[in-house]
Amino acid sequence: MRDAVTAETIAIGSELLLGGRVDTNSLYLTDALSVLGIEVRYKTVVGDDCADIARVVRTAVRRASLVVLTGGLGPTLDDCTREAVARVLRRPLGRSATAHKQLTAWLRSRGRTPSASQLRQALIPQGARVLKNPAGSAPGFLVSAGESWIVALPGVPIEARQMFDDGVFPWLRRAHSRRVPLIRRTLLTYGLAESELERLVVDLVPTQSGIALGTLASPLGVTLSLTASSRPADKRVRRSHEATREPPVRELIAQSLAAMRARLGSLVVGEGSATMEQIVGEALQSHALTLATAESCTGGLIGHRLTQVPGSSGYYYGGVVCYSNEAKTALLGVDPALLQAHGAVSVEVAASMAEGIRRRSGCAIGLSVTGIAGPGGATPTKPVGLVYAGLARSDRPTITQQFQFHGPRDLIKLRASQAALNWVRLALLDR
Amino acid sequence: MRDAVTAETIAIGSELLLGGRVDTNSLYLTDALSVLGIEVRYKTVVGDDCADIARVVRTAVRRASLVVLTGGLGPTLDDCTREAVARVLRRPLGRSATAHKQLTAWLRSRGRTPSASQLRQALIPQGARVLKNPAGSAPGFLVSAGESWIVALPGVPIEARQMFDDGVFPWLRRAHSRRVPLIRRTLLTYGLAESELERLVVDLVPTQSGIALGTLASPLGVTLSLTASSRPADKRVRRSHEATREPPVRELIAQSLAAMRARLGSLVVGEGSATMEQIVGEALQSHALTLATAESCTGGLIGHRLTQVPGSSGYYYGGVVCYSNEAKTALLGVDPALLQAHGAVSVEVAASMAEGIRRRSGCAIGLSVTGIAGPGGATPTKPVGLVYAGLARSDRPTITQQFQFHGPRDLIKLRASQAALNWVRLALLDR
Repeated sequence: MRDAVTAETIAIGSELLLGGRVDTNSLYLTDALSVLGIEVRYKTVVGDDCADIARVVRTAVRRASLVVLTGGLGPTLDDCTREAVARVLRRPLGRSATAHKQLTAWLRSRGRTPSASQLRQALIPQGARVLKNPAGSAPGFLVSAGESWIVALPGVPIEARQMFDDGVFPWLRRAHSRRVPLIRRTLLTYGLAESELERLVVDLVPTQSGIALGTLASPLGVTLSLTASSRPADKRVRRSHEATREPPVRELIAQSLAAMRARLGSLVVGEGSATMEQIVGEALQSHALTLATAESCTGGLIGHRLTQVPGSSGYYYGGVVCYSNEAKTALLGVDPALLQAHGAVSVEVAASMAEGIRRRSGCAIGLSVTGIAGPGGATPTKPVGLVYAGLARSDRPTITQQFQFHGPRDLIKLRASQAALNWVRLALLDR
Repeated sequence: MRDAVTAETIAIGSELLLGGRVDTNSLYLTDALSVLGIEVRYKTVVGDDCADIARVVRTAVRRASLVVLTGGLGPTLDDCTREAVARVLRRPLGRSATAHKQLTAWLRSRGRTPSASQLRQALIPQGARVLKNPAGSAPGFLVSAGESWIVALPGVPIEARQMFDDGVFPWLRRAHSRRVPLIRRTLLTYGLAESELERLVVDLVPTQSGIALGTLASPLGVTLSLTASSRPADKRVRRSHEATREPPVRELIAQSLAAMRARLGSLVVGEGSATMEQIVGEALQSHALTLATAESCTGGLIGHRLTQVPGSSGYYYGGVVCYSNEAKTALLGVDPALLQAHGAVSVEVAASMAEGIRRRSGCAIGLSVTGIAGPGGATPTKPVGLVYAGLARSDRPTITQQFQFHGPRDLIKLRASQAALNWVRLALLDR
């Protein structure tokens, strides 16, 4: 393999071009490869057309030394990754005895006899090495293409991951034991716009050492990243760091990140892949507090997010999805007169919901959210995106907060859930 | 523009390569372009590196006649789409008076004075036409590159969409008024594996007319698609259909789809972009029935999904997230002795939860889900992924169902929510 290893992922499948489906395999591969210091520089998606696949694979082997394909290895008529790679290599397909054996064993273990179309999956380009599929029927393969390597994995994410972890990662690690891993660290922030945030921290970035600041805005906040590029703009810098690069760059990034944390204070939610729901969960756990939720416009999204975290049963009680006014009264004891007087989307009802769920659950904290997710339901004084949250606690007075969000229904729900969880986070920081 | 219009989307941003973030703009663009008969054949993702961007844009203009870039138009240091396109075109950047005016007006309307870095956004390749950004500050642009066209849109999805709809779509429609739209219809099914499903319907596909069957498996079911390719394998077919293609192909697809529906019966959830939660909502509405939920292991996901549908307040009451045993007792009246005797994950508790939420809500239907999402919580007799659901109805006896799912926590939650909603759908079909 070439010395400077750069990678390209190619996701194959017309559904990835046409449907409401996105390629998630490449994210996993990018993370896994970065551990080995291999940088994914390009990601391509192409449909189930043999000529198109061959064309993108040809482009990829010219610009990347490792090309990882996912998809198109199945038994159905539209699966033609095997053929496309064979075409690029100008080699025929051959029946692999290993692949054939694995395939039939896997199907037999599930009480099935391989059909003719399933057996097509044992045809791989001549000279390729078979990759075992521990979680499905389609074998993958690994083959050299001039100075580059092509790896073909199944499209089903769980199969792609396991095959990569078992069959590709160890091989790559052996080939790259001397490479320096790409260093990248991120901070999730909440509360400031992207450009304001950049302005606040840009002087803390040691750019002269080839470390780049990145910002990424999303409905969940702005993520700041510091990346030590494997290709510093200035070759002089690269040379001077070549021998001793890892410790100083890693340290410089850590120092810069610490300085950012200090300056940004409570705007920082967490580091790395930590999510708001994880951070809130950790804070609840460290204070030995329990939380119950009363959700109206978010419809259960806050509960869903909190329970994505393993072990959340330790601090999350559950709660009520009081989507209707009747549910607010029957399940939380919100006074119908209050709903009548102020409407379901009001400071008063938010407070009553939070107190209702706290009282009924016996938890330390009751969190409520009520708002207008749209597109219907707005009134002259209450626009779509208006959301109230309430926080009832065993040891202090109930507080409320008003938010105004914008966007379509799903985004308003997501933003409301994030703002409410962030509010809990900030309340716990005060303790 | 060339006669045969094929498109490529290029999403720009290192976070799309490195982080837990996927490119969703391309899905929107693909849908919008397909209406005009323009097929997106390639999707590429590239980081914020000027040389890399220039390289993929060069490849794209060679293989596609319309190249749509998203991202890299912002004011921050890592935004270099403008420079990369200028490099490909071998033209300098120039300050666009139109872009400058729009930019300052947009910022002023928000009470802000443009900073030097923000004004960089008014620099676009010479000869390009400015595209107005109705939802943000970054202007886009449109420029010809030999026989192809390059369109540059912002990365923020809402800005990209509006700019495309307002500034690009009308222009493309004028240029392509005589083209035949790509025809694609899909069916979401639930209950059979991908290859079994394909075997069941493959004889109903009029392949001789250039119509292709596609299958796509996901935790939400298997989607079948029929697509009239704009490039039939056989040129003879293309010629014979050239003049009269639209009506017969459209009709053939409709006939094939109807035959599939008839054969698959209740395995078909719905057509097109319809989701399980929409279909369940429509069924509840048409029967004038209301639903309340009692969720344990799904943690609110079912409520969240039901309330993603606008108007869901018409049939969805809300419910309880009874993540803890205490919540099952306090909020639903599940007998602690029952929990003690059978455990929270049991037929008995599922039935009691469904009856509890139905009784407390007064709804026609009470749906419950209780299970082990993992990774912890398994016992020798109750593995991770074991889920029970309960269905209590005002006019028939309560029923329960047992499921065994596999995979990580988030997938088990998602699969459980889909299985439970599908069960409600089937129960409503019986009426």
